[in-house]
Amino acid sequence: MPDTTTLAQIDAPLFDRLMEKVSEFGSTGDGGVDRPALTDAHKAARDWLCAEFRQRGYSVLTDSVGNLFGRLDLAGDDAPLVMVGSHLDSQPKGGRFDGAYGVIAGLVAIESWRAHCARNRITPRCNYVVADWMNEEGARFQPSLLGSSVFTGALDREFALSRKDRDGVSVEAELIRTGYMGGDDAPRPDCYIEVHIEGDSHMERSGAKIAPFVRHWGAIKLRIEVEGKQNHTGPTPMEDRQDALLGAAYIIAKVRELADQSKDTLYTSVARVDVTPNSPNVVPGKAVLFAELRAPEPATLSAAEAALRAALPELARRAFVTAEVVGTDIRPAGKFDARLVALAEQAADRFALPRMRLDTIAGHDAVALNAVLPSLVLAVPSVNGVIHRNDEYTSPEDLKAGAGVVLDMIRRIDQAGGCLDTAAEAK
Amino acid sequence: MPDTTTLAQIDAPLFDRLMEKVSEFGSTGDGGVDRPALTDAHKAARDWLCAEFRQRGYSVLTDSVGNLFGRLDLAGDDAPLVMVGSHLDSQPKGGRFDGAYGVIAGLVAIESWRAHCARNRITPRCNYVVADWMNEEGARFQPSLLGSSVFTGALDREFALSRKDRDGVSVEAELIRTGYMGGDDAPRPDCYIEVHIEGDSHMERSGAKIAPFVRHWGAIKLRIEVEGKQNHTGPTPMEDRQDALLGAAYIIAKVRELADQSKDTLYTSVARVDVTPNSPNVVPGKAVLFAELRAPEPATLSAAEAALRAALPELARRAFVTAEVVGTDIRPAGKFDARLVALAEQAADRFALPRMRLDTIAGHDAVALNAVLPSLVLAVPSVNGVIHRNDEYTSPEDLKAGAGVVLDMIRRIDQAGGCLDTAAEAK
Repeated sequence: MPDTTTLAQIDAPLFDRLMEKVSEFGSTGDGGVDRPALTDAHKAARDWLCAEFRQRGYSVLTDSVGNLFGRLDLAGDDAPLVMVGSHLDSQPKGGRFDGAYGVIAGLVAIESWRAHCARNRITPRCNYVVADWMNEEGARFQPSLLGSSVFTGALDREFALSRKDRDGVSVEAELIRTGYMGGDDAPRPDCYIEVHIEGDSHMERSGAKIAPFVRHWGAIKLRIEVEGKQNHTGPTPMEDRQDALLGAAYIIAKVRELADQSKDTLYTSVARVDVTPNSPNVVPGKAVLFAELRAPEPATLSAAEAALRAALPELARRAFVTAEVVGTDIRPAGKFDARLVALAEQAADRFALPRMRLDTIAGHDAVALNAVLPSLVLAVPSVNGVIHRNDEYTSPEDLKAGAGVVLDMIRRIDQAGGCLDTAAEAK
Repeated sequence: MPDTTTLAQIDAPLFDRLMEKVSEFGSTGDGGVDRPALTDAHKAARDWLCAEFRQRGYSVLTDSVGNLFGRLDLAGDDAPLVMVGSHLDSQPKGGRFDGAYGVIAGLVAIESWRAHCARNRITPRCNYVVADWMNEEGARFQPSLLGSSVFTGALDREFALSRKDRDGVSVEAELIRTGYMGGDDAPRPDCYIEVHIEGDSHMERSGAKIAPFVRHWGAIKLRIEVEGKQNHTGPTPMEDRQDALLGAAYIIAKVRELADQSKDTLYTSVARVDVTPNSPNVVPGKAVLFAELRAPEPATLSAAEAALRAALPELARRAFVTAEVVGTDIRPAGKFDARLVALAEQAADRFALPRMRLDTIAGHDAVALNAVLPSLVLAVPSVNGVIHRNDEYTSPEDLKAGAGVVLDMIRRIDQAGGCLDTAAEAK
C-alpha cells in the first residue's frame, strides 16, 4: 500500500532556480524588478513561464483577457481541478517577490507533489493548474485584479480590453502585441490557493512564518478629475488663475485628513496624480487624482467616501477649479474560505512553523476569485514589511516554507478527492 | 534722391504664408501646436526655417548650444548688425503664436525692408540677423531661456548641454540627434528686437495694439525634492507612511498662500510635479516640485523665497518626509532699453496704432539679452489674454501691425546707421 502520509517535501533546488530565473525579467539591478503588465519585460517573463510549462508537459492556455494557465492533468478528465498561482506583473520599480513568488511556489508545489506521488506510488486524484493573472497590480492599467475580475465575471471583458495606460495604449493592443490575446476557455477550478509575501511587518514582529488571511478589507478607489484653466504662470494675475494642481493639493491633504480624523480603522491615499501639461511655467489646466479608501468595515468605507464627495466642491472652489469623481471601483469586504484556512494551519503545524491569522488590506487575485469559488491567500513574512519596492525581501527559507505549506494543502485536498470538507481529515 | 520717409509696408501675403506654414509643425489639429524644444516637430520647423533662409540668400549659422541664426548682409562687413527674432519651440500642447510669431515677423520685417530699399533705391546701412533661440520655453528642459542665456554668458554651455528632460535625455544628445549642434560663432548684434503676443488681457481691455515692455519682473525658480518612502497603499499602516505626494501637497498649498498673504505684488505657482512611481497603489517615495516666485521688486522676491525655505521643514514633517531645495534659477528684475521703447512708440504713432506700456512678468529671450545689449520686447494683444494653450489667438491684422512696427523700427535704426541715440530722429 502506498504511503500517503510521508511529509512531502518541496523541491528546493527547483524552487531556487526558478525564483532566481524569474527575477531576471525586468531586473532593475538593485534587487528589484520593473515589470508592469504587458510590457516587454512582462512578456519575456511569461514567454519563459510558457516554456517551463511545455517542457514539463503542462498544457498552456491563454484566455481572451490574457490570463495565462499551465494545466497538468494527473487524474483523468473528470477529476477535481486545484488552482494555484498569482501574477508575474510587478509595480514599476517594484520587488521581485510580489506576485512572482506565488506563481513559482505554485508550480514547484505541483511538481513536488507529482514527484512525491511517483516516488511513493500514490495515485493522484486531482488535476492541477498554475495561474498567472493579467494585470494584478493595476499600476499600468486600472483597475487592479483586471484579469481575475474578468475571470469571475465581476468585470466585462470589453471594459478590461479598453483600459488604457497613461500613454493611451490599450490592454487590447498590448495583449495582441505581446502575443497574449488568447482564445482558450479559462480552466474552472474547484478551489484556488495563492501564497504571497506579507505587505506589513506583523508576522516578522510576532515571529510567525505562515499566516492565512481570514478577511479581506473593502476598498473604494476613486478617480477625481480637477479642471482648471491652462495659462502662463508669468503674466496671469493670481486672482485669474484656475490652478488644477492647487485644487488637487487641497484634495490630497483632505484625503489624508479623513484617515487621521476617523474614529474607526480607515486607510487612505492619493498615490498618483496626472497633471496636464505639467510644465513648470504653465498653470495646470487639469489634474487627475487616484484616491483610495480602505477599511475592514463597509460602514466606515461608505462614510469616508460620502465625506470626501461632500468636501470636493469647497476644496475645488478654494482653487477656483472644479472637481468631479469620474470613476469608482469598489471591492467589498469579505472572508476567505474557512476550510482552506484550517488546512493551511494544519500544514503549518505539521512543519512546526509558527503561525498567525491576518486580514489582507491589499487586493489579491484570490480576493476576486473568492467571490465565486473557495479561495485563500497565505502569507509569508517580508523583512521590515516592505513591499512594492526593490528592497522587498523574504529569506529563501521562509519562501520555501510557504511553498511547502501549499504542497501539503495540495496533498490533503488531492487525497480527499478534492473535497474541502474532508481534506482536513486526510493524514 | 531716394525717398527714405515713405511708410515702408509689411509684405502681408508673405507674412500670412509663413505664419500659416510654421503652424503646421507639431500642429495638434485644434489650432495649437505641440513643439517642445528639440523634438521631431521642433526639428521639422527649424529645418523649414533654414530652407527659407537659404532660399532668400541668408547665411545659416548654428552655434554650439543650438541657437539658429539667418544672417543677411546688406551693408558690408563693418556695418552695424540688427537682430530680430524669438523661438520656434512651444509649450507641450501650446499655442501657435508664442515664439513663432516673433521669428516670422522678424524675417518678414527684414524682407520687407530689403524690398522697400530696392524699390525706393535706398542704400541699407545695417546688416540683419533673425534668431531662433534654443529652448526658450523651458518646458522640456529647465531652465527656460537656455540658448539665449548661454549666448549672453549667464549660463555655461556645459551646464546647458547637460540639462535632461524627464526621460533623462540630454540637450546635448538631442542637439546632435536633430542636427543642431553647430560650430558657428553666434553673431554679435548691436541691438535686439522681439515681438511677442501678450500673455494677459491688459492690451485687449484698453484697446492698445502695441505695447513695448518697459520692465521685466524678477523670478526665482526652485526645484524642491520631497523624499518619502515607497510602500504599498494597502497594508502599510497610516502612521508608518511617508508619503512624498502628501508633503508636496502641503508645499503647493503654502506656495499659493505666500502670494495670497503678500502685501506687495507677488505671483507664485507650482505648475509641475514629478511623482515616483506615480502608481495608484504605491505610497509615493518621491515628488519633485517646480515652484516659481515672480515679483517686480527684488525685495519682495527674496522675502518670499526666504519664507518658503523657512516653511519647508515643518511642511515636510507634517507628512513624515523630507523636503529640500535642489535647484534655484534666478532672473533678476530689470528695465528694457529706453531708446528702443521710444522707437516702438514712434512707430506705433506713425501707423496710428493705440499703444500702452507694460511690464513683462514672463521670461523672454530679450530679457536674457537685455543684460548684455540694448533689447526690447514689443507686445501685440492676445484674445482673452490666453497664452500657452491651443486657443491662444491674435488676429492677422494685429499680428501684421506688430510686424509693421518692427519694420519701422528697423527702418529708423538702419537710416541712423545703427545708432540708437539718433534713430528716433530718423524720419
